[in-house]
Amino acid sequence: MKLRHIFVALTLMTSTVAHAGIDYTMIPFKTLPAQPPIPQDNPQTDAKIALGKQLFFDPRLSITGTHSCNSCHNLAAGGEDNRAQPVGVYGRKGTRGTLTIWNAAYHTIHNWDGSAKTLEQQAQQHILDAKVMGMPDANTVQERIAGIPGYQQQFNTVFGEAGISLNTITKALASFERTLITTNSPFDRFLSGERMAISKQAKRGFEEFINVRCASCHFWVNFAGPHPGLALQQGEGFYELFPNYPNTDYEKRYKLADDIGRYYYSQDKTDTRMWRVPSLRNVEITAPYFHNGTVKTLDEAVRVMAKTQLRRDLSQQQVDDIVAFLKTLTGEFPEIALPRLPATPKRTAVAGHDE
Amino acid sequence: MKLRHIFVALTLMTSTVAHAGIDYTMIPFKTLPAQPPIPQDNPQTDAKIALGKQLFFDPRLSITGTHSCNSCHNLAAGGEDNRAQPVGVYGRKGTRGTLTIWNAAYHTIHNWDGSAKTLEQQAQQHILDAKVMGMPDANTVQERIAGIPGYQQQFNTVFGEAGISLNTITKALASFERTLITTNSPFDRFLSGERMAISKQAKRGFEEFINVRCASCHFWVNFAGPHPGLALQQGEGFYELFPNYPNTDYEKRYKLADDIGRYYYSQDKTDTRMWRVPSLRNVEITAPYFHNGTVKTLDEAVRVMAKTQLRRDLSQQQVDDIVAFLKTLTGEFPEIALPRLPATPKRTAVAGHDE
Repeated sequence: MKLRHIFVALTLMTSTVAHAGIDYTMIPFKTLPAQPPIPQDNPQTDAKIALGKQLFFDPRLSITGTHSCNSCHNLAAGGEDNRAQPVGVYGRKGTRGTLTIWNAAYHTIHNWDGSAKTLEQQAQQHILDAKVMGMPDANTVQERIAGIPGYQQQFNTVFGEAGISLNTITKALASFERTLITTNSPFDRFLSGERMAISKQAKRGFEEFINVRCASCHFWVNFAGPHPGLALQQGEGFYELFPNYPNTDYEKRYKLADDIGRYYYSQDKTDTRMWRVPSLRNVEITAPYFHNGTVKTLDEAVRVMAKTQLRRDLSQQQVDDIVAFLKTLTGEFPEIALPRLPATPKRTAVAGHDE
Repeated sequence: MKLRHIFVALTLMTSTVAHAGIDYTMIPFKTLPAQPPIPQDNPQTDAKIALGKQLFFDPRLSITGTHSCNSCHNLAAGGEDNRAQPVGVYGRKGTRGTLTIWNAAYHTIHNWDGSAKTLEQQAQQHILDAKVMGMPDANTVQERIAGIPGYQQQFNTVFGEAGISLNTITKALASFERTLITTNSPFDRFLSGERMAISKQAKRGFEEFINVRCASCHFWVNFAGPHPGLALQQGEGFYELFPNYPNTDYEKRYKLADDIGRYYYSQDKTDTRMWRVPSLRNVEITAPYFHNGTVKTLDEAVRVMAKTQLRRDLSQQQVDDIVAFLKTLTGEFPEIALPRLPATPKRTAVAGHDE
């Protein structure tokens, strides 16, 4: 299996690098490109991106008209909600934390359990999830958006005869999401040769990060394993067992083993507590941590990962250094002009759900 | 009483104008200035406006961390939520529709019942309203925002020793809100001499608007009566009885008399069913209409107003013309770049309310 090969190769590589002092040309990291992979069946166009942005901010995509994509994937912040449990329509709470939408375009698989193969599919699932946007079916979504003349015109322009459907709605959303890239973090600038872009402590932290083998999983452009086309194709998963070493104190304290992970979705017992490796970009601002959000601080998250995944007890100095490094992964957030939403004429925003 | 004087003068004036054909130099309308009145105790500064914008988009101002000002006063749309009843924290519903925040800076009084004398006070009320943002007291608001280091720095810069308090928070919010002005509507351009800026039908509609005496209340810069400094000072109210002529079919159908209006707030029986005159700017996109949102379309709203306020039955032609005119009041919405919100470190976004 390709994945296993790259994983082993990288483990060896990082190990060699760590012992010899870091040769920066050898490490399995790469600056974040401004352009993520674009699927052939959904090419980017300016008009489609603009439409997707409107839909992203439009609460009419939820059954109650109260929740837009941005309600949980807050683009004014870390692309998520900084909560242990997301709050969807009717105050319903999800069981797993919101993953950031920033740089999500670099994942080969989506959601904590890899249950969505594309950004398009992820959007469809969340629109139709009773605990998220609560739309009962594709038809209801289609009718809601088709009831807005401004959108009708735009979908005609962008999608021609395909018009408005859950399929085209999520294509537009995904196109916008593929613009949500935070390039030029201090670490990216450091990788590009700007040696003073990160502090001495952060550099030590980076060496520890490799030494301790965090980089075995958190590598490449998104610090989350292969991006589409590198070893894995879109839709293939890069999963890890978590907790890897069972029965630690942390596991009990933070209920890390309570959720069966990908098994719940795949119904394949070998997927028990398998999780998609999440990105570490902008991790500084996406507390709380892990699938259940039980860990509130980044230093504790580092400690927990070292212990449960790598059986390592880190010193406070090591933790501080690694945290200093992780903070250099906060990128530049592109300025996003709030879109103008087309009006719903002849009735209230969400007929039947607003009185 | 000053108000009565101007009201009578305008009624006479509009009546004269209507019979003689319109002399545009005489009419009680005025293009919307880009700069609204600024209170002496809260001067505008760029830093304060930027801070207010962050707060406006920050859901941490609500007890649950789910609702920002923008959740109901949606700046991607008409500055409100297009609902009959706003949905606040815990899914709690308000009893009166959200008023638009666009151009609110031109009102002498705020809320449907005039229960807030300033934008600052309006913000305070809604932050502390159990059905809106649900904060229990000023102290909780202060602590929530003071727990965010990024805000601490900004408040120090903007407010110096006054620091973070509900008072300074709402000052910043109001400063941002005073930038939410939609100038240069087709009607404004028409008033400025661009005679072709509105259609022939809209011009007829404007004459009808004066003829039917809609303009007796909906006049001046905001089509909502005096702005601060013109006849009324900030905090003084411009109210009207609604329904003015009781027991119409409309009153029953749309439950127009069920809410006792300002009486509920003032506990003064003479305020029964007295309401602040709302602005007509951008009215095209702020359906549904009236305090209870029972009327869903603009043409029906025009019919209802003519009948209940002025005892007039309008022809379909009159209604269509007036609606055509009202649509010329939709202004240009300034581009708003989404702010970046400072992170909450060392804990989740809203400790105690997100698990």
